[in-house]
Amino acid sequence: MRKTLNEMAAILNGKVVGDGLVVVERIRGIDEAGQGDLAFIANPQYRKKLETTNASAILVSPGTESTGKNLLVVPDPYVALGQALALFYPEETESAGISKNAFIEEGAVVSKEATIYPGVYIGRGARIERGVVLYPGVFVGRDAVIDERSVLYPNVTVYRRCIIGKRVVLHAGVVVGADGFGFAGPGEKNMKIPQVGIVQIDDDVEVGANTTIDRGTLSKTWIQRGVKIDNLVQIGHNVIIGEKSVIVAQVGIAGSAGLGKSCIIGGQAGLGGHIIIGDHVMVGGQSGVHEDVPPGQVVSGTLHMPHRNWLKVQACLPRLPEMRKTITSLEERIEKLEKRTEDK
Amino acid sequence: MRKTLNEMAAILNGKVVGDGLVVVERIRGIDEAGQGDLAFIANPQYRKKLETTNASAILVSPGTESTGKNLLVVPDPYVALGQALALFYPEETESAGISKNAFIEEGAVVSKEATIYPGVYIGRGARIERGVVLYPGVFVGRDAVIDERSVLYPNVTVYRRCIIGKRVVLHAGVVVGADGFGFAGPGEKNMKIPQVGIVQIDDDVEVGANTTIDRGTLSKTWIQRGVKIDNLVQIGHNVIIGEKSVIVAQVGIAGSAGLGKSCIIGGQAGLGGHIIIGDHVMVGGQSGVHEDVPPGQVVSGTLHMPHRNWLKVQACLPRLPEMRKTITSLEERIEKLEKRTEDK
Amino acid sequence: MRKTLNEMAAILNGKVVGDGLVVVERIRGIDEAGQGDLAFIANPQYRKKLETTNASAILVSPGTESTGKNLLVVPDPYVALGQALALFYPEETESAGISKNAFIEEGAVVSKEATIYPGVYIGRGARIERGVVLYPGVFVGRDAVIDERSVLYPNVTVYRRCIIGKRVVLHAGVVVGADGFGFAGPGEKNMKIPQVGIVQIDDDVEVGANTTIDRGTLSKTWIQRGVKIDNLVQIGHNVIIGEKSVIVAQVGIAGSAGLGKSCIIGGQAGLGGHIIIGDHVMVGGQSGVHEDVPPGQVVSGTLHMPHRNWLKVQACLPRLPEMRKTITSLEERIEKLEKRTEDK
Repeated sequence: MRKTLNEMAAILNGKVVGDGLVVVERIRGIDEAGQGDLAFIANPQYRKKLETTNASAILVSPGTESTGKNLLVVPDPYVALGQALALFYPEETESAGISKNAFIEEGAVVSKEATIYPGVYIGRGARIERGVVLYPGVFVGRDAVIDERSVLYPNVTVYRRCIIGKRVVLHAGVVVGADGFGFAGPGEKNMKIPQVGIVQIDDDVEVGANTTIDRGTLSKTWIQRGVKIDNLVQIGHNVIIGEKSVIVAQVGIAGSAGLGKSCIIGGQAGLGGHIIIGDHVMVGGQSGVHEDVPPGQVVSGTLHMPHRNWLKVQACLPRLPEMRKTITSLEERIEKLEKRTEDK
Repeated sequence: MRKTLNEMAAILNGKVVGDGLVVVERIRGIDEAGQGDLAFIANPQYRKKLETTNASAILVSPGTESTGKNLLVVPDPYVALGQALALFYPEETESAGISKNAFIEEGAVVSKEATIYPGVYIGRGARIERGVVLYPGVFVGRDAVIDERSVLYPNVTVYRRCIIGKRVVLHAGVVVGADGFGFAGPGEKNMKIPQVGIVQIDDDVEVGANTTIDRGTLSKTWIQRGVKIDNLVQIGHNVIIGEKSVIVAQVGIAGSAGLGKSCIIGGQAGLGGHIIIGDHVMVGGQSGVHEDVPPGQVVSGTLHMPHRNWLKVQACLPRLPEMRKTITSLEERIEKLEKRTEDK
Repeated sequence: MRKTLNEMAAILNGKVVGDGLVVVERIRGIDEAGQGDLAFIANPQYRKKLETTNASAILVSPGTESTGKNLLVVPDPYVALGQALALFYPEETESAGISKNAFIEEGAVVSKEATIYPGVYIGRGARIERGVVLYPGVFVGRDAVIDERSVLYPNVTVYRRCIIGKRVVLHAGVVVGADGFGFAGPGEKNMKIPQVGIVQIDDDVEVGANTTIDRGTLSKTWIQRGVKIDNLVQIGHNVIIGEKSVIVAQVGIAGSAGLGKSCIIGGQAGLGGHIIIGDHVMVGGQSGVHEDVPPGQVVSGTLHMPHRNWLKVQACLPRLPEMRKTITSLEERIEKLEKRTEDK
């Protein structure tokens, strides 16, 4: 792929500052970029790199000062980067076909327009729609559904009866539909509660490597349309995650929690069971949330408090030892004062 | 399955309030339940749903006030739910058989009454007992043992010589017996300490998806009878977990820690290496425990303190900035006072 | 293997205290050891076990007091243990060979001196060098490279174009090269940024079970020579980890963070995106680090402060409720004092 900067400006809806006839052939990071490379600066803290980069052109946001380089000013350089990457590095198309070394139980329905690699296992009653790609080691349990154009990377497991929507991406090692963690009399009887529900994943969801999503106890664990989940996330039984929410790596969401739309949950945060998180809530990384959170709030910390408050608490913590000393000395001084005034 | 409420009462050892002749055919959640459905209320906070549910009957605990609905009062509704689910939705029985597309090394012993799916690999010297189910992608290393009626879901890996007891369930992606993390001179030499021990998992243990249990350095990492482990848990080398303990998702237990019986470790907690946790200890979610804990204690927090204390600390934390201001103002007021009294 | 203690002393460069002619045949833990066993004490807190052990001989560090047992005094008993284990329990050699039940795309290059188990999948353009062992269920994507003598345990996934060096060990379920978590307009547009970079893992790296290492957005995620990573660790796109660093279980490292050489990151810690951690930095378990850390520092806590300070903060936390009460009482007393002095 070879494009002039002017051509890129037309595609990305941007404005050229500098030489619009310079040709870009690749997209590379600002540090590595050289002749023929289009680079980008999405984070203002990296703007100083504009002075030293050897890139032929750089995607920047409005208001970036020129430094004699060829700039392509776009509303959002990160979005433009995504578009440019999709253009320069289109996904490899797989030649559709069902490997004769895949294991397909009788009574499974597999579209001829699906790509099924060797070593895939598909249980009876399962339905695999057209355009689906199942990589080696994928297991699709009985009566499960994988809808159009979804991609399941190697060694993904989908338990029986779970439903995967259209254009869903499950990265390697994802487990969908293992039993929820339900035991009556925990620590004593540990009596297993059969988990007879399912997982439903709606269209355009992406799930990161080795993430686990447990099946519902009775009904469904439900990941709604457009949700993006990172690696090594744990999602308990009966959880509902609202449309377009974003769950960063290693988050744990306990059973029966409900998240609204467009929430962002920071890495390693833990959400307690049975709580309701409103739409557009942001939870800071490593936070622990154990109560309902109203829509639109930003919460952080091990206890759940407004993010601004948490920042202040954070600032206090290192001064705690000093505060303790001060309190002791205040006590002593007051005692003296009290004695003195009493004496009189 | 169709049962009258009276029949269910006989099975679940409960007492009917309302119409004992009503028929239930399914078990569903209180919100979704309708005609023919048996629902349940285990958590008192959901009791108000009794008024609005359309369920034909509801499992409730003693002392629940009637609202004109058909109730089945049982000692523990969650236990009764488990029993009812096992009755209404019995596990699908697998037709025993060893797939000719499984890879079984010479010298492995596999019971004819085991179910071995295609794509399973069993190393020489391994022993697979009757009633075992090995799903596709399961790997059983050399000289490992899988005892009667255990179920290994897809893509489980059991390294060489590890021992899995009876009726054990390993969910998809579990790794048993990878090398413990032992390096002499960490950060400098990083000299590997060979991990020549094993993992032993006793009867009736269940392990959640993508959990990892490392082999012992010299002897064994030991998960005792009836332990239940959730998803994405890390268990280090030489750890011992006592009978019936319950480990919630994403917990990490460092090497050579020892847990007693009937402990409950909350989600995302971290237990330090070489510590001893007594019987019946409860550790709060996201806690970090770095010292021995005597039997019966409930501990929480990043440092380890009694849970009640931790709750009080939690309550103080948000007020820390305010406390700091107060201290400063106290200081100023005292200084004034001191001057005043000195002046006289 | 049978060795006299004198022979072991020669091999391990140690000094015998006691009977140099005693024979050791096995290596076992100090508690289990008996006749014919060599045990070890690496941690001084276990020295009292010297009195009660039945081991024929014990590896100890200089300055250990004799108790009439046969001791082998070595500079570092843990290092000596590693050497002794490697001697007594050499790794089983695999008979090289490429299973005809492996799936190898045309255009992949596989050394005849590699060991390829059944059920392995190797994409076209991939290169597998001599001495490599690929266990069942391993997936090697197109154009990926696995260099000499690396071992990939069962169900490891290496995505397309990733590069694995020499003598690398990837434990079961590791995922190398899944897409980094890059979405423009998170929570709203969630526009996927194609991840077209790779993962490069240099020589002598070991990666624990079910750990995930994401591919770079444009260039590479880079794990340098001799790094050791534990289980269930998450490493984001574009991260660089310097030589010999050690990453303990369940750590999360966000995108574009850079770690120096010989760092040690404690279990469950979280490192924020785009930060720079200097050489020889130690981060305490469960810490959250969100700012750059200069070389050689030891940091701990949810906020990032010097470790010593954190220890003091930790000591204060349990006294926070008491501190709050004291402040209130101080206020009352001061008010009284102020009134009293005003009255005069």
